[in-house]
Amino acid sequence: MIDRVEKLTVERVTREGRRDNEELITRELPVTIILNDRELVTLLCSPSDLNYLAVGFLSSEGLIKGKNDVRKIIVDQQRGVVRVQTGDSLKDNELLFKRLITSGCGRGASFYSPADVEQVRVQSATTVPAAGVFSLVREFQHRSEIYRATGGVHSAALCDTRSILVFNEDIGRHNAIDKILGECILKDIPTADRIMITSGRISSEILLKVARPGIPILVSKSAPTTLGVKLAADLGVTLVGFVRGERMNIYTNGWRITTSNGTSE
Amino acid sequence: MIDRVEKLTVERVTREGRRDNEELITRELPVTIILNDRELVTLLCSPSDLNYLAVGFLSSEGLIKGKNDVRKIIVDQQRGVVRVQTGDSLKDNELLFKRLITSGCGRGASFYSPADVEQVRVQSATTVPAAGVFSLVREFQHRSEIYRATGGVHSAALCDTRSILVFNEDIGRHNAIDKILGECILKDIPTADRIMITSGRISSEILLKVARPGIPILVSKSAPTTLGVKLAADLGVTLVGFVRGERMNIYTNGWRITTSNGTSE
Repeated sequence: MIDRVEKLTVERVTREGRRDNEELITRELPVTIILNDRELVTLLCSPSDLNYLAVGFLSSEGLIKGKNDVRKIIVDQQRGVVRVQTGDSLKDNELLFKRLITSGCGRGASFYSPADVEQVRVQSATTVPAAGVFSLVREFQHRSEIYRATGGVHSAALCDTRSILVFNEDIGRHNAIDKILGECILKDIPTADRIMITSGRISSEILLKVARPGIPILVSKSAPTTLGVKLAADLGVTLVGFVRGERMNIYTNGWRITTSNGTSE
Repeated sequence: MIDRVEKLTVERVTREGRRDNEELITRELPVTIILNDRELVTLLCSPSDLNYLAVGFLSSEGLIKGKNDVRKIIVDQQRGVVRVQTGDSLKDNELLFKRLITSGCGRGASFYSPADVEQVRVQSATTVPAAGVFSLVREFQHRSEIYRATGGVHSAALCDTRSILVFNEDIGRHNAIDKILGECILKDIPTADRIMITSGRISSEILLKVARPGIPILVSKSAPTTLGVKLAADLGVTLVGFVRGERMNIYTNGWRITTSNGTSE
């Protein structure tokens, strides 16, 4: 197993002077996903849970629907290669490959047709008290250990309304979410009616990743973009941002965040 | 011209209660670059300086070498399309297109051959005092206006050793740097012997973007990854990170950052 951090000697400059210092740096690894013997994509990521990353990525891109589509996964962490074999029905699907290339490079601009949005629209009656969101985000921040050590990674977590169920970290905010989704697929952890927390900014791709597996509530400490807000509205996702202490912004579908007497208590 | 921010009504939850509030949200626009009538890539970006973004992106990907390769640029901001026509010598170059697809999706894993690294290795005797870096970063933070308003963008700046020459912002840290590089190409602003500051994390792609136009010093308020540090060493780039107040980490080629008597004064 490759450590996710590496100790490097760095020159530290302060008012007191200049001296060598050992610091933890977050590791970055190029990982190539090979789907049915065909090179699909190379992701720059943190070298952990590469099986989750590959399965989550394939699922986010619509190349697999669930666990049953995955026949075999071989992870070669040293060489940075994950080989995924799927069932026959998914092999050599040129359309899917083509879609991935569009989506992988262009990150889904072709996706925003009304029909596509309707297909992944989230239907869920789940609600969570605002106080519950604050509590989940506090737990989330306690868990973000690599960030505290190196300052270089994003975190993501799948939660129910009371606690964190699955947690992961990666140098890429997209990868951190894909690792969560991949773990859920491989371990049969349901995602519907649940909450995704991310440390990263909320742009349109993040909304698509979260809505596809039916997650109705997306929470971030950071800011959304206008397209993120628009997609959240169109996809039926409750989007919460700028959670800081006991404050938050609710951008869309606020009915899923309950407050008593108009307060968060 | 499309504004880079949009005012949206948001539900603001605090201890005091829940109320509607108008907030500025940073705008995200999918922009498709069409090179010589062929759709190349769709970038999710902030809707400003799309000509700079397109030219910087093409240059970063090695598809154009300089201003003379650009025959015509047509920006359709409403539809999110930038058409670039190049000279005949660059047209229909299948190899370049293939490389872009690899690099655009995979972000350059195929790039790390020793020959490629040698080709873009930076040769520059430029030095800058540590106090000068602190001063540039202070100016950089003052300029980051959209970030302060919306919390949703990255900034980048090209500097000489005394002041900021070119500044830009984008929802994507890669895009912010490409906008800088594109402006430099179109306005004949030299990049060699200069300093790039970015608000974002330093992963391997950022090093490649900066080294290709010969920029010898890369400065960030954030953390680098291990691969970013390794590439900085291989490419001859001075990498400075975690600049906070009067403190910084120098990761590679520290000789370009001068300090008197071992201090930063």
